[in-house]
Amino acid sequence: MGLNTRIEAAISNAVKVGQAKFPDNSGAVPPRLASALAYATAPGGARIRPTILTSVAMACGDDKPMLADAAASALELIHCASLVHDDLPCFDDADTRRGKPTVHLAYSEPLAVLTGDSLIVLAFEILARQSSHAPDRVAQMIVTLAQRTGMPGGICAGQGWESEAQIDLSAYHQAKTGALFIAATQMGAIAAGQEAEPWFELGARIGEAFQVADDLRDALYDADTLGKPAGQDDLHGRPNAVTLLGVQGAIQRLKDILGGAISSIPSCPGEAQLAEMVRMYAERLTPVVSPQSVPGE
Amino acid sequence: MGLNTRIEAAISNAVKVGQAKFPDNSGAVPPRLASALAYATAPGGARIRPTILTSVAMACGDDKPMLADAAASALELIHCASLVHDDLPCFDDADTRRGKPTVHLAYSEPLAVLTGDSLIVLAFEILARQSSHAPDRVAQMIVTLAQRTGMPGGICAGQGWESEAQIDLSAYHQAKTGALFIAATQMGAIAAGQEAEPWFELGARIGEAFQVADDLRDALYDADTLGKPAGQDDLHGRPNAVTLLGVQGAIQRLKDILGGAISSIPSCPGEAQLAEMVRMYAERLTPVVSPQSVPGE
Repeated sequence: MGLNTRIEAAISNAVKVGQAKFPDNSGAVPPRLASALAYATAPGGARIRPTILTSVAMACGDDKPMLADAAASALELIHCASLVHDDLPCFDDADTRRGKPTVHLAYSEPLAVLTGDSLIVLAFEILARQSSHAPDRVAQMIVTLAQRTGMPGGICAGQGWESEAQIDLSAYHQAKTGALFIAATQMGAIAAGQEAEPWFELGARIGEAFQVADDLRDALYDADTLGKPAGQDDLHGRPNAVTLLGVQGAIQRLKDILGGAISSIPSCPGEAQLAEMVRMYAERLTPVVSPQSVPGE
Repeated sequence: MGLNTRIEAAISNAVKVGQAKFPDNSGAVPPRLASALAYATAPGGARIRPTILTSVAMACGDDKPMLADAAASALELIHCASLVHDDLPCFDDADTRRGKPTVHLAYSEPLAVLTGDSLIVLAFEILARQSSHAPDRVAQMIVTLAQRTGMPGGICAGQGWESEAQIDLSAYHQAKTGALFIAATQMGAIAAGQEAEPWFELGARIGEAFQVADDLRDALYDADTLGKPAGQDDLHGRPNAVTLLGVQGAIQRLKDILGGAISSIPSCPGEAQLAEMVRMYAERLTPVVSPQSVPGE
């Protein structure tokens, strides 16, 4: 089974747990919310976070693949939940996501709030259900995922910074974009029985790179290419690497960060393959810049 | 230490985990979101769910009080999160809760969404952090709490039913109001090392009673007495026991359910005390009805 197939199967199985009939009532499930869970999670984007997680687990031996699968799907559910809530009218008020109407437009705003809530809850359930295979690893993965999702240092905290008059930029970026990449590398390592701490830097650096790449895409691409509204950072006055460094400066910064990411990979059996994967992402992340698409250059 | 003091301490400690400085960044935490976590959780209401949970754990011996405390605070965090999200403009659009402005009015709508999300995540983190004391119990509590919070059978599912043209009333009520009472009795038993299943019925019946009591309060009381808007069920066309049975019929139904709840208590060392607690709640739940407050009677 290829990596993509494995990850899609894990996510799809996880969503089915949230849609399944419940043993101790008449079995009725609210159909629109059940449908919205699937709508919000498939078809997915690049599945970058679960791919990194599973790649790290494989590089570390992947001795309990059911744990890596649970972790990968849990992490993607959290990511999808954050997209659904970020798209809400009170945040980005986005009409499209991954080329289709956002959940609050396709279903309703109440169902979008509930979809995000349900996906967050489901992520932790999926992990806890694997506890019997390795209770310590599962508990550590739940704590790691929670810390990178909620307060004080997860993606919720990252969004929370946008409601502050004074933003701590380093805390903001690490929480907003870095957090789930740190969760990816650390949960991948934990799933395979390794220490989490040495994997922090790889996740943090991939997160930084992703932030710079996202800044470039937001500044350079139109809504059709992005599959979501463009120019959102400018519109919402959010800090952006392109504003700070210019387009060419931001691209150089992206390359430097990814070089640092590769050299931070801890020694492990699959080290070379993992470095190759980061290189592949580096190419995919770096935008192709034609002269006329560079504003002011 | 009294029961109330014990529960308030557990909740307050849990919230502090979500506000704490984070070890691996500069320690900055978004202050408004951190403040909103405390605002949404204190001062609390009657803390009924964690009180039931802790009472069941004590009735079962409470051999690991740190587990009961984690479970009680996790359950209350989920309940508070649900109140914050239910109050949002896209749901009840409520101005007041527990006698003060709702979170989206006191802070903002984005911060209210993030407060709910962060409290949900924190609940699971608080539980997972206790795993080393009894990994099996903790994993089972996380699954139980997740099932009673998310989809397909938790309070999210309950809210989800309100977006359906055709409502399965039994599934709706069990998910919307029953779920967290079932979580309370079952997590209390699990925290003390007992089987969860025999405790289902007590939770389900307390949940039913609470739903009928809430219907009565919604129909009979004004906003000042409730500390939140009155007449919401009528306004939103939600099913209500008073519409169905009349005021006296609903009061009789409440008494019947609570009698059933008491006789469902599984045999355990603290059985008598637990029955006493349910009786006490029964009195507090039953509204005092003066003739002029009964519409049409």
